[in-house]
This record gives sequence, structure tokens and C-alpha cells, in this order.
Amino acid sequence: MFSSLENLNRSLFEECPILANFISRLGRSAFFPPDIPEQAAEAKGKTFNATIGQITNGKGAILTLPSLKKCINVSNIDTALLYSPLLGIERLRNRWYEISQTNNVSGIAVSRPVVTVGLTHALFLVAELFVDAGSVVVLPKPSWGNYFHIFQKNRGADVIFGQAYKGKEWNLYMYEESVKGVAKGVPIRVVVNFPSNPGGTNLSLEERREFIASLKRVADKHPLLVICDDAYEGFVYDSSPEASIFWQLLGIHDNLFPIKVDGFTKFLSFFGGRVGFITFPLDPSSLAVKALENKLKFLLRSSVGSPVAIAQEIAAEVLDSDSWEVEKLKLIQELKVRWEKLQRELGCLDSSIVEVKKCNSGCFTLLELKGTLKGKAEYLRKLLLAKEVGLISVDDSFLRIAFSSIEVEDIEPMVKIISEVCDRYV
Amino acid sequence: MFSSLENLNRSLFEECPILANFISRLGRSAFFPPDIPEQAAEAKGKTFNATIGQITNGKGAILTLPSLKKCINVSNIDTALLYSPLLGIERLRNRWYEISQTNNVSGIAVSRPVVTVGLTHALFLVAELFVDAGSVVVLPKPSWGNYFHIFQKNRGADVIFGQAYKGKEWNLYMYEESVKGVAKGVPIRVVVNFPSNPGGTNLSLEERREFIASLKRVADKHPLLVICDDAYEGFVYDSSPEASIFWQLLGIHDNLFPIKVDGFTKFLSFFGGRVGFITFPLDPSSLAVKALENKLKFLLRSSVGSPVAIAQEIAAEVLDSDSWEVEKLKLIQELKVRWEKLQRELGCLDSSIVEVKKCNSGCFTLLELKGTLKGKAEYLRKLLLAKEVGLISVDDSFLRIAFSSIEVEDIEPMVKIISEVCDRYV
Repeated sequence: MFSSLENLNRSLFEECPILANFISRLGRSAFFPPDIPEQAAEAKGKTFNATIGQITNGKGAILTLPSLKKCINVSNIDTALLYSPLLGIERLRNRWYEISQTNNVSGIAVSRPVVTVGLTHALFLVAELFVDAGSVVVLPKPSWGNYFHIFQKNRGADVIFGQAYKGKEWNLYMYEESVKGVAKGVPIRVVVNFPSNPGGTNLSLEERREFIASLKRVADKHPLLVICDDAYEGFVYDSSPEASIFWQLLGIHDNLFPIKVDGFTKFLSFFGGRVGFITFPLDPSSLAVKALENKLKFLLRSSVGSPVAIAQEIAAEVLDSDSWEVEKLKLIQELKVRWEKLQRELGCLDSSIVEVKKCNSGCFTLLELKGTLKGKAEYLRKLLLAKEVGLISVDDSFLRIAFSSIEVEDIEPMVKIISEVCDRYV
Repeated sequence: MFSSLENLNRSLFEECPILANFISRLGRSAFFPPDIPEQAAEAKGKTFNATIGQITNGKGAILTLPSLKKCINVSNIDTALLYSPLLGIERLRNRWYEISQTNNVSGIAVSRPVVTVGLTHALFLVAELFVDAGSVVVLPKPSWGNYFHIFQKNRGADVIFGQAYKGKEWNLYMYEESVKGVAKGVPIRVVVNFPSNPGGTNLSLEERREFIASLKRVADKHPLLVICDDAYEGFVYDSSPEASIFWQLLGIHDNLFPIKVDGFTKFLSFFGGRVGFITFPLDPSSLAVKALENKLKFLLRSSVGSPVAIAQEIAAEVLDSDSWEVEKLKLIQELKVRWEKLQRELGCLDSSIVEVKKCNSGCFTLLELKGTLKGKAEYLRKLLLAKEVGLISVDDSFLRIAFSSIEVEDIEPMVKIISEVCDRYV
């Protein structure tokens, strides 16, 4: 398709000039040349196909240990045990595309998802493509600590932290405020994460409108790459929208390029499987998508070889079952019960020293320590540990409660201990 | 354990000064600070543990979709579906350590293997730690094309290719010859791959002695990092040694640091699982190992999140079974039958135009095109495709036959076609 790297880059930037603002050195040089996988593709279906370094019976079925096969119960065991295609197993890519499309209210075409080794890997690959030493990346504060590791520590970005909350509510103008000091025209990358970690905050429809209007004002001044981390998509417990904000960012501004990053870690509660996805706001048949897929193939092959076939095949099996949607609903229902109980119980906390951030989604609730407790998160965490309560301290003044990993009956006694420890410390 | 990056680096280079020659910028800065995973570890076993963003019943058991659980048949399903520890599941690390130790003739202590997302990822992580832009890396030619992608294209190394074969035999002095032009004292990284891809060549005991003596002469002049890619370890069909050459490199020269990279892709014929390992020639309890593990934790978390739990748990189950060794032997026996048949049939080729490289192991056999066929590998590959034979062309003058993916009955007719096509072209 692309005869050379130059040819590929030309196609990409002609169709999608905004990306020339973001492309990293590694992203620019990434090129998957015709190589063994391509030669193997050409030999598919030949009588004597001696191309691939897998161990098969010569007819595409794996030869492996019976005790290994025994551990897996899927209809197509060969697909599960042999190499996955670099961009992912077609059946799964198509299925996930189909499911995602039900949220595509704009009707604007997006690419078929590229499979990665879990959602973190999707973020990392996007960072490899579009973040270089010195690139400006805006992150919410507080946010998932690994963002900082990926973008700043690993990829060398200049991270600007924006203030995620104003009081209990999400700060809808966070990105706009954060880049006020950045010279006009400088490309900006932002990570948008709703439902959020660590707050469990999801924007309402009206909040989304304000938030998007603010992003558009940023795009008036800067080429803007919006990385939507949809780890907790669908885990919503009130009337706020379940579908990713990504779908509302399609086609709204020439200077704004959204990327959707999601996965099955939470969506299917499949933490150990490592299946993530990257979706671009581009027509699947466009040369720009082929160019980005080519670059991702290079980055994938030269770092992890190929994505995890066994987890993909299991996920495909689940998503083709009749029951998964009902099962998923039940799982969310279970979390919703915990969430309701937790929010009710947290009402007993003294709000002058502990502020509960707006929580209506996800797996976590976030407490901000105020007044005399300000800056004492790590100290309080240790006091709580001594009382048999394990929480996570975030930055200096936040405590995160994972209600995803605590039983509903434990919530009341747990909050009681939190309340006592906070009160006693004041 | 380490209060700061500076403290960690000091410990590493004090215990293991040779690594200061190889450490990359990213490797030097890699540091896994006390963070959420550490806080979660402290909360383990507490009555109310609300630290981790996994979905559980509050007692450590996963809540997930029944249709997902149904796809997996292992005794500890929670371990398979929840996050793996960053360095890998302890049960598997210990088991693989134990199995590997049966090959440790030197008795010199090595670290417990760190789990990676397949063997490629192990190579990539080693490259992230120890290869920078401009680092000198010596690769055999021909060798697996992905080496060049990982080390040169992705990590920016200066790759020197050494001549892998002299005639049909492996060139035992390849690395020594390759670095003749490199100034004394310049650190050298080499990749050593026996059984080899694409040749299926394994050194005999005598050849190993010569080869190692040659490496020692390199180490007399250069700090030498020897990355042993043991992808095909154990797939040996003659009397040459089955165990990795890594074990013979332990403690032989102060200026030589071997690293063992292996995995279950071929060892268990588990291509879709993505389980690889990195082993260092250092005492498991040393500060140097703790420092390297800390750096790997950072690199793993900030790129793939965590290794693949489901594949690790399945592999652990297999390696704890009574039958796996017998099953593995049967698999190797099956490949040996194909190998014998293929070597016999290849005897019919005209050796003045097609030279069969020494093949006694692995999954492949390599043909070098000579005389009038020299440089025509890609052209011949396409002629062969038209005759229903799929091979891989390597560099310009080599064709690779994967006997791992061709049935024994197909070998005779396939070689007949190869022979005809070569003869006709001359």
C-alpha cells in the first residue's frame, strides 16, 4: 500500500494535516515495511505454506500440549493459541466496532478499533505516536498517577496539571484555564477521562455542553489532541450520559482531533486479559487510517510482538453470547448498590474537613481533606490502615475509596472508622 | 527500599558497575516510586480494603460475567482474571526459576525471571534499559527481522551486522570480527540466538567452546552485554546441547554481562498467550536485582499496565501438571520427524546454487541462493508462490522454510517443487 515511509507520511499529512502538529519523532519514523507477516499473508491458502514460525499440523491447527488446551474453553481454540494479527483479531475488531457504533450519534465515520495490550498500552501507543520530549500535555489533578508516568516520565512530555475540581464539582474550564500561559499556536494534548479516576465523576448533559464549548475555545488557539480515556465507560449510576464524550467531539472543530481509548479491563471485568483499543475519528477506508495502522503495526511488533490472542478470542466469544448484556447490567447494578450506600454513608462526614467530590459513576469515590486535615492524606491513610481500613492517598490532600472492591455490608462500618479517624485527628 | 532514583542508581552501579556502560537515558531515569500498587500492597489482608480498582466481592474474588468465566478452566480463576503483579505471578516466577535451574551447571545465582508480554517484549524492555540512540548493537545476518526493528528502528541503536554463516556452518567468530573497527572500550551489545531463527542452527559443545572463547576476547576490549534470545531453547534434534548458552556465560569474564530472554511462545507452543521472561546473572536478593526490578516495574506499568494474568495462570497450571514434560517431548518428537525428513529431501538440491545451512534445531531451515540464483530470493519466492509453495525470503539471497508449520507428508512434494523451480531458473 505504501511504498516508503515518505509516501506514507505524505498520505497521512495530506489527508489529516492536523496530525503534523502532534506527530513525534518516533511516530514520524514508524513504518511497517513488507516483511515476514506480509509474506505470510501472501502464502495463506497455498498447498504448502511453510512461512510462519508457529507449530501447526500443516493445516492451520496448532500442535500444543493437551494440558494447555484443557485450560481454555472457546469454540476456536486455534485462534486463541496462535498469534493474533498485529492489529487484532478481525472478529473482535468488527464486533467492538459494531457495539461502539450504537453510541455514534453523529454518524461521522470512525476507524475500526486497533487492539492493544490493555488500555494502558493504548495510551502508551498514542503517546509514542503523538508525544515527544517537550510536548505539552494537560492532565487533570488529581488523576490516575500512571498518566504522569506514561506521558512525562516515559515519553518526556511537559505536563501541565489543571485543577480538576472546583469545590465538589468538576471544573468544566480546566483545560482552557491550564493553557492560558501557553503561546497561541502551540499544539496541546489533553487527556479527558469520564467517568473519572480517582473521582468517579461523570458530566451531565448540560455540563458536557459547557465543557465542550470550552474545549472548542482552546482549539480556536491551539491544535488540540483530545485523548479520551474511556476506561470506565458505561459505569454510570445516575441520569448522566453513559456513552463516551468522544462521540460528541466528532467533527466539531477543524483544529480538534479526538482519539478514543478503551478496553475490556473494566468493560468486561477482565483485568488479567489485557485487551485495549484505539479508535481514530477517520473513515476506516481512508489512507490516513491505513497510515496510522501501519505505524501502529510497527510500534506493536517492535515492542510486544502481537496483542494477546487468548484474551481477544475469549472476549469475542463473550460478546457473541446472548447473555453478556444482561450479565453486564447485573454487574453495574451491583456496583450501583454499593455506590448508593457509600454516598449515603459519606453524608455523615464533617464537610468542613472532608469534602466528598461529586461521584456518580466508575469504581471510586474521592475525598478531599480540608481545614486542619489539608495535606495530611498520607498520614491519615496510615492511621486508617492501623484501624483495618485500606484507602489510597492521592497527591497530598485526597483519599480514594474503591467501592468496586468492597462489599456493601462493609461500607457502613468502614465509613464509620473513616469518620472517627478524621474527627479525632482534627 | 529505594528512597529516590539517585539512591537506586547508586546501589545498582555500586553492585554492578559494568551496567553503567550500558544503561540508557530512559533506563537511568526509570524509577517506580511508592504509588498505588505499593499502597494496595500495604492494605492487603485488612478488614476493609478499598484500595484497588478491580471489581471484586470484597474478599478478593472477582465479580465478572459468567459467560467470561465459562471460557477458562483453571483452578484459580481469580488469579487468571484479576491484575497480575507487575513482575509477574509469584507461583509462575518460582516455577520457571525452578525449571530453569536444572540447566544451571555453574551454580552461580541468577535472578528470578521477570514476566513480560511475550519474548519480544522482553527484548524490548532490555533494549529500553540498555540501548540508546547511537549504542552499538551487533546482530547476526541473517537473523530475525524484528531485531533490527526493536534495536535500530525503535530504539535508535547503531546496528552492526555480522556474517552469521561461513559456508554451511555458523561463523563462531562473528561478533569478534564485527567489532574489529570499533574503538577499544566502547560498550558492545550483542544478540545471541541458538537455536537460531532463521537457520535452525544450534552449536555443538565444541563449537560453543570456540564461540565463548571468541566472546571473551571481545570482552577483553569492550564491556560486553550478551542478550541470549532463547526463543527455541530445547528444540534440539541432534546431540548438541539443549540448555541455553546463557548458563555457560555466567561468571566467565568480569567485562561480560549475559541476560537471558525466553518465553512460552514456543516452549509451551502458546503463541497467543504472550508470556516472556528476563533473567539477570545476579543474586535474587541483591540490591542490583531489586534496582533492575524497580526499573522494569516502571517500564512495564507505564507501557502495558501489567503482564497477562490469564496466560500466566494457564502456564502455571500446565507446569504444575504431571504430564507436561511428556507432552512437550512428544511435540519435539513430532518436529524432529519433520526435520529429519526435510534434511533428507533437501539433499536433492543442487548445492552449487542452493546451500542448505546447518540445521539441527528450532523451527526453520535456511537455504542460501548462490551462483546465478544469488540475490534472487524475492523473485524465487514469488515463482514458488505461483506453484503453491509459500516460503519466506530473507535479505536478498535466503529462503526460509518453516517446518514447524508443514506436515511431514507435504515435505517431499514441497521440496520437489523448490528443486524444480530453482533448476528451471538457472
